[in-house]
Amino acid sequence: MLKIFHHPFSASSRFVRLMCAEYGVQAEYVVERPWDRRREFLIMNPAGTLPVVVENDGPPICGPMVAMEYIDETRGYAMGDRRLMPNHAETRAEVRRLVEWFLLKFEAEVTGYLVQEKIYKLEMPRGLGGGEPDSTVLRAARSNIRHHLKYVGYLAATRDWLAGPRMTFADLAAAATLSCADYLGEVPWDDDDHARHWYARIKSRPSFRPLLADRILAMPPSSTYADLDF
Amino acid sequence: MLKIFHHPFSASSRFVRLMCAEYGVQAEYVVERPWDRRREFLIMNPAGTLPVVVENDGPPICGPMVAMEYIDETRGYAMGDRRLMPNHAETRAEVRRLVEWFLLKFEAEVTGYLVQEKIYKLEMPRGLGGGEPDSTVLRAARSNIRHHLKYVGYLAATRDWLAGPRMTFADLAAAATLSCADYLGEVPWDDDDHARHWYARIKSRPSFRPLLADRILAMPPSSTYADLDF
Repeated sequence: MLKIFHHPFSASSRFVRLMCAEYGVQAEYVVERPWDRRREFLIMNPAGTLPVVVENDGPPICGPMVAMEYIDETRGYAMGDRRLMPNHAETRAEVRRLVEWFLLKFEAEVTGYLVQEKIYKLEMPRGLGGGEPDSTVLRAARSNIRHHLKYVGYLAATRDWLAGPRMTFADLAAAATLSCADYLGEVPWDDDDHARHWYARIKSRPSFRPLLADRILAMPPSSTYADLDF
Repeated sequence: MLKIFHHPFSASSRFVRLMCAEYGVQAEYVVERPWDRRREFLIMNPAGTLPVVVENDGPPICGPMVAMEYIDETRGYAMGDRRLMPNHAETRAEVRRLVEWFLLKFEAEVTGYLVQEKIYKLEMPRGLGGGEPDSTVLRAARSNIRHHLKYVGYLAATRDWLAGPRMTFADLAAAATLSCADYLGEVPWDDDDHARHWYARIKSRPSFRPLLADRILAMPPSSTYADLDF
């Protein structure tokens, strides 16, 4: 049994939730608010980042990429055709490149800003940086997302799935981060039909349902967030 | 034969150089200056980051963590006891956590600032941001490195090597990033004897020699940079 410390609007946490659902891994989810810097949490993960996965009181597995490798190494072999990591070293490198692209670069340039400004700041006390969103930061994120969506569209137009002929961790990483922006109505889907059609495919998977049910009271989702025919 | 696009003072590039030397992998090294944003380079790696590894005209392997997995997957099995990635999923997770710690977090909080301000800005044209180092940025890096060195010291005091009983990729990642700061005389070694002794051990390995020979004309190394008994 896995115990997963996460936040519903952390893209990296969503990535691991999707992965567990795709691999049929049962997990207990515990919400962690990283800005609390809870002592017990920092002992598990001194970097203070989400998610953290613990299996049967074993050592903490910290961060989305480390969790991906761990879950694939311990469960991937049993998945056959549904394994989310290809077998060949070169194609594995492409999956990992894109996972990093979405969870580090897209996060740093788009989703991190949007979630921080529009969700976390609602939950954070003022003394820790809570309050109104900073419109300059939102403007930067809105400009950056157009470039990123174009790149998703380019990948979706030239390959069946983002990293190649089969669905992989790269698709889950991209979908996880886009879904946070989509909740906030910040994805300009009309800009790119290839990106939209790829997202519609992955959004309709059963693994996605729990994410589509996530809600934050003070910030309701965009009208099409949970709509499979958006 | 590998072709590796790198910069002598990019910590992530040094990490891959160390890894290749430890694994006995022959490579042709090509210096890339990422601020040039060379078109052919961006086609290989749209993120524009170093290093990029190409094997026999195969697809580009982008970034230090992706290169680590690729080189270990293609060469690690033949290394026996000298493999730098342990066998067990949980200990592999600890190695990967620390590799990310040093190549992402330490880089973002310390080495990235130091190298940008004191080396890259010497090489960059003024129009692209070249010029004098920004003392505020240097001050932040100098404050941050003390916390990081303490963490290295804590790991070195409680384990034989940073991730456990054997030398792993985690040691190479830490040494790669510390070596850049050390070249600039920016590591307060007197603060932590455990960290210093660990670094002396890894610095004396043959794989380290090419790094100790790196020089940049306008910025000579600190007096103890290449000294094994610093």
